[in-house]
This record gives sequence, C-alpha cells and structure tokens, in this order.
Amino acid sequence: MFFDKLGIGLDKPDLNDLQDKLLEAKKKFIDEKLGFKRLPYEYETLKKDLDRVRKLTEQMDTIVVIGIGGSDLGTRAIQRAINGLYYNQKTTEDDRHSKNIYFSGDTTDPEAIAELLDVINLSKTTFFVVSKSGNTVEQASTFAYYRDLIIKKNLKPQDHFIFLTDGVTGTLRELATKEGYEAFEVPSDVGGRFSVLSTVGLIPAYLVGVDVEAMLKGAQDLDEEIKKSKDKMDDILEYVGLKYLYYKGGKNISVMMPYQYGLYEFAKWYQQLWAESIGKKVDLEGNVVHEGQTPVAAVGPVDQHSQLQLYNEGPNDKVLTFIRAEDSRKNIDLPEDYTGAEAFEFLKGHNFHELLNYEQETSAFSLTQNGRPNATLSIPKVDEYHLGQLFYFFEVAVSYFGNLININTFDQPGVELSKNAMYGVLGKKGFDEVKEAFDKYKSS
Amino acid sequence: MFFDKLGIGLDKPDLNDLQDKLLEAKKKFIDEKLGFKRLPYEYETLKKDLDRVRKLTEQMDTIVVIGIGGSDLGTRAIQRAINGLYYNQKTTEDDRHSKNIYFSGDTTDPEAIAELLDVINLSKTTFFVVSKSGNTVEQASTFAYYRDLIIKKNLKPQDHFIFLTDGVTGTLRELATKEGYEAFEVPSDVGGRFSVLSTVGLIPAYLVGVDVEAMLKGAQDLDEEIKKSKDKMDDILEYVGLKYLYYKGGKNISVMMPYQYGLYEFAKWYQQLWAESIGKKVDLEGNVVHEGQTPVAAVGPVDQHSQLQLYNEGPNDKVLTFIRAEDSRKNIDLPEDYTGAEAFEFLKGHNFHELLNYEQETSAFSLTQNGRPNATLSIPKVDEYHLGQLFYFFEVAVSYFGNLININTFDQPGVELSKNAMYGVLGKKGFDEVKEAFDKYKSS
Repeated sequence: MFFDKLGIGLDKPDLNDLQDKLLEAKKKFIDEKLGFKRLPYEYETLKKDLDRVRKLTEQMDTIVVIGIGGSDLGTRAIQRAINGLYYNQKTTEDDRHSKNIYFSGDTTDPEAIAELLDVINLSKTTFFVVSKSGNTVEQASTFAYYRDLIIKKNLKPQDHFIFLTDGVTGTLRELATKEGYEAFEVPSDVGGRFSVLSTVGLIPAYLVGVDVEAMLKGAQDLDEEIKKSKDKMDDILEYVGLKYLYYKGGKNISVMMPYQYGLYEFAKWYQQLWAESIGKKVDLEGNVVHEGQTPVAAVGPVDQHSQLQLYNEGPNDKVLTFIRAEDSRKNIDLPEDYTGAEAFEFLKGHNFHELLNYEQETSAFSLTQNGRPNATLSIPKVDEYHLGQLFYFFEVAVSYFGNLININTFDQPGVELSKNAMYGVLGKKGFDEVKEAFDKYKSS
Repeated sequence: MFFDKLGIGLDKPDLNDLQDKLLEAKKKFIDEKLGFKRLPYEYETLKKDLDRVRKLTEQMDTIVVIGIGGSDLGTRAIQRAINGLYYNQKTTEDDRHSKNIYFSGDTTDPEAIAELLDVINLSKTTFFVVSKSGNTVEQASTFAYYRDLIIKKNLKPQDHFIFLTDGVTGTLRELATKEGYEAFEVPSDVGGRFSVLSTVGLIPAYLVGVDVEAMLKGAQDLDEEIKKSKDKMDDILEYVGLKYLYYKGGKNISVMMPYQYGLYEFAKWYQQLWAESIGKKVDLEGNVVHEGQTPVAAVGPVDQHSQLQLYNEGPNDKVLTFIRAEDSRKNIDLPEDYTGAEAFEFLKGHNFHELLNYEQETSAFSLTQNGRPNATLSIPKVDEYHLGQLFYFFEVAVSYFGNLININTFDQPGVELSKNAMYGVLGKKGFDEVKEAFDKYKSS
C-alpha cells in the first residue's frame, strides 16, 4: 500500500499496545457483511446498467445530477479529479468529453437554480434524481420544479428524468412504476456516504467518459490485499491506529490536504465520510459518548497561504493527512529563458510537478519541526485506478476507526430533528410535535 | 447592525463581566492606525485606478488573477457572490458581463495550468499578478511560465501583464520600472487577508461588472456606525464576546455556514482571516500561548447532509455562525400543478427562497436543542453593499478577538519555515541552513 512518513510528529505514539485491537478490527471488517465491500466486485452487473443508460441518454448533450450529500459528493469528487475544473467549457478535441455535467439539488437557493438554467438547454438535458427514498426536500423541490419546466416546454418528463433509487420502495420507485420513468437501482444495503462505487457515483461518471472499470479494479485490488494480509498489520491499520491514539490524546480535528488541485472535491467527500461516520452521541452499548473528529478539507499549496500559520503555531489539536501524487498526467517545464525577468531565473531547470511536491514536503517538514502530527499518502498519479483505491482506502479506514471507538459507523440519527422540523414547517402530516417545538424556539 | 438569535445554546455565557474589556477593545480599534480601516473611504482615489485599468484592458475579453491566499481569496469571494458559479459560461445578455475571469497562481499543479490554457485565448487575456513582493513561488512560477508563452506567441508581455504590487519596493515593482509593465499600487500598510477592499480585490471585481463603490459604501456605513457608538456595546462586540467566552471554554473550532450558495467562497475567505489572524504561538508579551481557533467553511443546506450529524451529536467543541439573506435576487416559486407527481404536492404554495431559510432555521433549531452554540447573521440580500459590510464586519471582529487574547492579529510568522525551505530546495542564496535541516528530515 502507499503511505509514507506516517504519523510524523515529535510525540509520535507507540502502536504496539494497540496492535491486537487493530488486528481485531481488521478481522471484524473482513468477516462482516457490509454492502460497500461488495461493490468493487460488481462491474459485470454494473455494465448492463451502463449500456442501458448510454442508450437512454444518446440524444442528450448534458446531464444534471440532482443529489445532495452522499448522493453527489462522490460523483463531484470523481468529476473534478478525472475531468478537471473547466470540463464543461473545454474547447479542444477530447474523446472523453461526451456530455457536459452539472450538479443541482444540493441547495434550494433560487439564485443557484437560476444560474444553472442560464447555461443548460433543457431539451437536451437528462436529470438524474439520485435518492434512495425521494423524500429529501432539496431534491424533491428541485425535481418538482425542473419537471414542471419540462412539461411547460411541451416536453415529456419521462424523456428527461432518470431515477437512481431504491429497487423496491420509496417515493421515486413508486413514481417510476406508476408514471413510467426509467430507474436504476441503488443498493439498499449501502449508505449514501459509502455509495460512490455503486450506480450512484459510477453511472454519472461513466457518462462523462470516466473509466469506471478501472476505478473498481483499484478498489478491488486494495480489498484483496487486505484480505490476503488478514492477520498482519498494514498501512491502513497503522494510519488508523495513529489517528486513533492522537484522537484519544485530544486531537479533535482531522485535516485532509491533497496537493493535487483536482483532489479538492475528494477532500470534501472525505469530510462527509469522516464527520457522519464518527460523529456519534452514543456508543454500541448505548452510553452517551459524543465521539467525533471534525474533518477539514484543505488543498495545497493554496492553504499554505491561508491555514498553515494556524497549523504550525496554533494549538496542537489536529492531525493532518497529505495526499500527493508521484507523477502528473500533464507535467510542464518552467521556462528556459528569463531575459527581461532575470529575478525569476532561480526557477530554471525545474518543472511544475516538482515544485508542487517540494511544496508538499516543505509543509510537512515545517509541521514536523513544530511537532504537529502529519501523514503523507502517496499515490502514483491521479487516475481512475488510484482514485478508486483512495475512496476504498478511507471507507475501510473509517470502518476500522468506528470499530476502535465502538460506535455505529453507518447510521446518522443526528440529522433527524432538523429534517422532521422541516417537514413540520412544510405542513407534512405526522410532524406536529416537532413543529410545535420549532415554533416555540422561533418565538423565543 | 444585523445579528439575531446570537449565541444561542443551552450554556450561553454571560457577557456582563466581559463588557469593560470589550468596550476597551472597541476603543482601541477606533483609535488605532490600521491600514484596512482607511479603505472604505478611498473610493475617489480608487476611481482613477479603475478608469486607467478599464482603458488598459479594453481590447481583452478575459482576465486571469495570478494570486494566492490574501491576494485572491477576497476576489474569489466577490466573484462567486455577485456573479455566480457559471459566469464565464453565461449565454444570456447581461450588462454586467464585460470580461471572463479566471484564477491561477494558487497552485503549481501542472494539470490545473493545462486546464486553464484549454479555455482561454492568450492573445485576448490580461494577467493580473497580485503580490506585494513578487517572491511567492506559486505566483512567480506561473507568471514566468505564462510570460514565456506570451513571448513565444510573438506577443508583447507588457500588453498582457499588469502588476498589483507594492508602490516602491519588491521584485515586481522593480520589473515594472525596468521593463515597462503597468502596475497598480497595493497599500503597504494592509496585510493580504485584510486587502479585499483595496485595489487587490476591487480592480479585478470592477472588470467583471461589480459595483465596487457600493461595496465600499457598505463597509463605510458600518465603520461609521462603529465610531458613532464608541462607548456602547453593539452586535459585533457581542458576537466576539460570546465567541471569545466559548473559545476560552474549550471550543477550538469555528464553523462559518452561509445558506446562500454564492457565499461559499466568502466562508473560505473567512477561513484565512480567522486562521492566520488568531493562530499564534506567542502573545504580545512574548509568552508562548499557542492560541488559535480552527475555522471550517461550510454551506447550507449541503452540509446538513454531510456535517450536521457531527455538529449535533459529536463533541460540543465548536461555535457556528450562520449567514442568511432575508431576500433573494431571483426568487422562484414551486410549481402549482403536481399532476403525475402527487407525492410532492406538500411543496405547493412555497418558494425556493423560503425553503432555504426554513432549512437554516431548522438547522439552528436542532443545534440549539442539542446545546450547541450558534449565531445567525442576517443580511437583507446578497449584493455589493452588504458584501462590503460582511467583509468589514469580520475584519473588525477578528481585530477585537485578537485584542481580547492579546496577540498580534496582523502578522503570520508561522509560514516562514516552509517558505524558506522551499527557497532552499530551489537553490536560492542565503537558505543553506534551512535546506540542510530539510534534507536531514527527508532522509530520516
């Protein structure tokens, strides 16, 4: 696997005492029935969906993912890492570029909705509504609105909406059955934040030219390595072990700081994974524990000029994970000739990729000198195979971590209250009590 | 001013004991000579620069800001809030839209540089190099590279680069004088993270149609209100006072969570302001204190589906600041007719702006029910005037906060080590010692 300089910091804890517990967590993970572990092996099943969705969207030039949280963060991470920031504007020829992609449904801000409508052509757009239940207010409202627009344009909504939803139950599945919308199945035993390697992440990714087979292969190879080394310590275990010891030592913040510009959205995906999985009020025995480590998404070198001052000099309350790539898909040399700009001649002979990795190393160096724990995760380069590995790496890591602190890694009971209050405000039936509490709060 | 429901939380601290200290901080702020306090009053001076830069860029269709940290985060925040996410792709007629804008110089990732070159036309592009010194490696290297490309295209670099830099000293100023580049002055007494209302933020903003006069007016009105109420408590003081008490009570994380989609980059600007200003090793007497509160940029409702689980159930270690707008620039009603999608009829009669604010309120409600301190900052709407106020509000707030904890709010000594190590690695003269320490670290 691929960690180096792990857990550097002057107060590097000793893993020996923890080793049994770590190996136990690994064994449990391998033996446990967890839906997301299956996904890397399901390319053959997925392939049928991919062929079908390609045909269904053949006439379209744009897809819009109506998602929020676990139903779009993974897709955003893939899109940004593989296709980059300006993909929808690209002017050069590129085989990858089959359709434009946009994201909606993660806000009900009308200004954002108006902006999107300004740049897409509805009659050439397929909207993917990605929701297990179909009840999420942000997605329900944007779906209802775009659907109404489509109808008012005398287009057929069934030609412009595809659902990614539960195979059996829920509002969207019922609607699909009753009104004849195309629908793909989201695995019912995989939680949103673990669903990036399912239809949720991979159907949209496939439509923008991503090699989803390679993504699954990356995850699969990692999973097989884990199973092969069942009784042995490995990089993920060591990473989790050190992170756990630092966490128990009071480091309540976990910074994810890739240096590849395209991995910023990956860090946002990690933010959800780490926050929702670990942030829990009760442990598995029902004791009130209030566990949680606040994830921060950063990106280098940008945040050297924004956050590093704090990381180096502020309270020693965080662990940092750097991600770096050893190679670049498009390296660029610095100029040869500095005539008329001699002050910059010190850059001669270098290339940009090298600069980027120097910056990562000098940041890690300064943190280490200041006794701040940091780990560097190194991948060969940002491509589908390694991105698949990255996703799976952290899904496994958070499963181990949840096991060490004895909480349910896979639920999210703490968002029910605001969700129910929202239903109450909107007058949905059965939410009177929470509505009353909310009204009391508002008038206080 | 404009805070409401301030400092809600079951353990709301009492500000009475702190009042004298707060009023002292306010008095000190009013009396102190701080460069950034001058900026809201300098529109007349700025106007000359704006007229000049308009003429200089008349033939161009694109500007690229080569900045990093304090030299571009403010500009990004303005651009995103006022012009939105898809500004460069807009197809509809809009008087605002004079030039496209891109950002570079905040990374040396060659993949990001290649992406940018894919979507701009060099011969119609003006690059703004925004750096007081011109020595920042990220900006120096991207400038050198784009300059080389311009020359190789047989274009004149002086027609395509404008410097925003110190008025007297530094690499860029020297280059401007010697080689005849146009240059605008960045005030030498204003630090990067306080510079958004100077030429740094406002020259680029002006070129993309932002009403910069209104921005300054907003800040100015706020500043005058502060001065008028010299001896009185006010919303900023109360906000800072509560934040300070929570911080002293162990809340080492500060979440900035606007609900307007366009304010996400504003939250990133806040991240730098709060991290670099407050994160300090020593106090004003030289005692080692390691102060700092880690800022987290979030945005609602997205992060309800990513971070709220942790905020509600995890450790009670953070204070949250919500930002909401009472009105929208482009409100949209939900559909009237739900035929064929009856399950969504509960949305009828609502509009998107209303939904957005309900979501903010129900989140605040759930946090409050869980005893998590949160404050809601309410602005009438997202426009230039109120954005100017927002920037100034937090610049003042962080100045007060720094005063309360007795640190130097305006320096950033903690980034020197990595910067010097980088110069050492690149073979710049005078950095041998740090290079040696870095080499030792790498081989360890």
